[in-house]
Amino acid sequence: MYDISMTIRKNMLVYKGKDEIRPRLKTVRGFSGGDAHESELQMNVHTGTHVDAPLHMLQDGENANLFFAENPFYQAQLLDLTQLNEKITAADLKEYNIEENSFLILKTRNSEPGFLEKTPEKFIYLAESGAKYLATKKIKGVGIDTNGIERAQSEHPTHKKLLGEKIMILEGLRLKKVPSGKYILLLSLLKIADSDGLPGRAYLFEPGEIETMLKLFK
Amino acid sequence: MYDISMTIRKNMLVYKGKDEIRPRLKTVRGFSGGDAHESELQMNVHTGTHVDAPLHMLQDGENANLFFAENPFYQAQLLDLTQLNEKITAADLKEYNIEENSFLILKTRNSEPGFLEKTPEKFIYLAESGAKYLATKKIKGVGIDTNGIERAQSEHPTHKKLLGEKIMILEGLRLKKVPSGKYILLLSLLKIADSDGLPGRAYLFEPGEIETMLKLFK
Repeated sequence: MYDISMTIRKNMLVYKGKDEIRPRLKTVRGFSGGDAHESELQMNVHTGTHVDAPLHMLQDGENANLFFAENPFYQAQLLDLTQLNEKITAADLKEYNIEENSFLILKTRNSEPGFLEKTPEKFIYLAESGAKYLATKKIKGVGIDTNGIERAQSEHPTHKKLLGEKIMILEGLRLKKVPSGKYILLLSLLKIADSDGLPGRAYLFEPGEIETMLKLFK
Repeated sequence: MYDISMTIRKNMLVYKGKDEIRPRLKTVRGFSGGDAHESELQMNVHTGTHVDAPLHMLQDGENANLFFAENPFYQAQLLDLTQLNEKITAADLKEYNIEENSFLILKTRNSEPGFLEKTPEKFIYLAESGAKYLATKKIKGVGIDTNGIERAQSEHPTHKKLLGEKIMILEGLRLKKVPSGKYILLLSLLKIADSDGLPGRAYLFEPGEIETMLKLFK
């Protein structure tokens, strides 16, 4: 079992390192003067591990309520693309046998220790040609190991293509320890009404691993 | 599959109906003047479906980082206690065969349509005697269908007993449609660092149901 979710904290990696979108956890009730400890979280919904709703980039796009009824299990395929130095294009993806209906997980140099910390604004991204190619493959979703799936393309064509084709975009994955291969993705999202994105928790399991865990319960 | 998580929205049920703890979703970037739509969420971490960390009620209690390494699957048992009108005591629980290591889910009149809406401060709760009894049963956790597991007991003995015994407290479940019986609980929590509680998503599956879903992927 690989927990591929990011921990939400003030000094975490955020999109392009922008300080104004850092999450904050504030104590609103404490033991000095009270009898319980309670915190309030303030965060951009595109922080850490999260999905984008069509509304995030498309003016008439649906909000994330769209995802509430999703089954949390997905057939997933992780591609190791750590040889690439800038972006992922259609040509790069054509090397692989990408399965229809799968949730494609893109592992890049973003997962290399120190890579994003040094230049958070220069993350490896999915180029427009790559998004167009994935749309022809009829995948269910695409995940990547940074807070954005795209940069350096005016008008966000990667987002718009994927969201327009109802392909889920999952950002902020931690993939350093995960080798390429087939997995079961467990993706469960906070049910925030009428939002443009949903933070959540994501795990990858080896095929058969969940069944083995559940057998212990009988 | 039963999704037993609450939807997070301003007019949702909150603890005792207190307005000051209502969650807020604010648009921080929009299409008028921008090229994307982004929202920020502000919420008490004890809103909706969530777990309490020992730190919530115990001065030297651990924070919720404790839960980060949990396996998200639990053996669960749902008790239908909808006959009770005020609280759940040890005597009420002794009627049932409660299994060691299980995550016990308490379904009460709180799940009855309109019950909590009418008098949110009078929810059915787990009495101190009930908590003490459950501690002898060595359960893994206890879940309930309202935002608090306890009221009307000075110094929060139910919380303190459970948290002191490392029994997880899961609050804010939606159980109206779920009959009593054995289930697999899927509980995945947002990984917020150093918090006193963690909101998340919870599902109940019939025994064998997950295995059937996963077979479709082969």
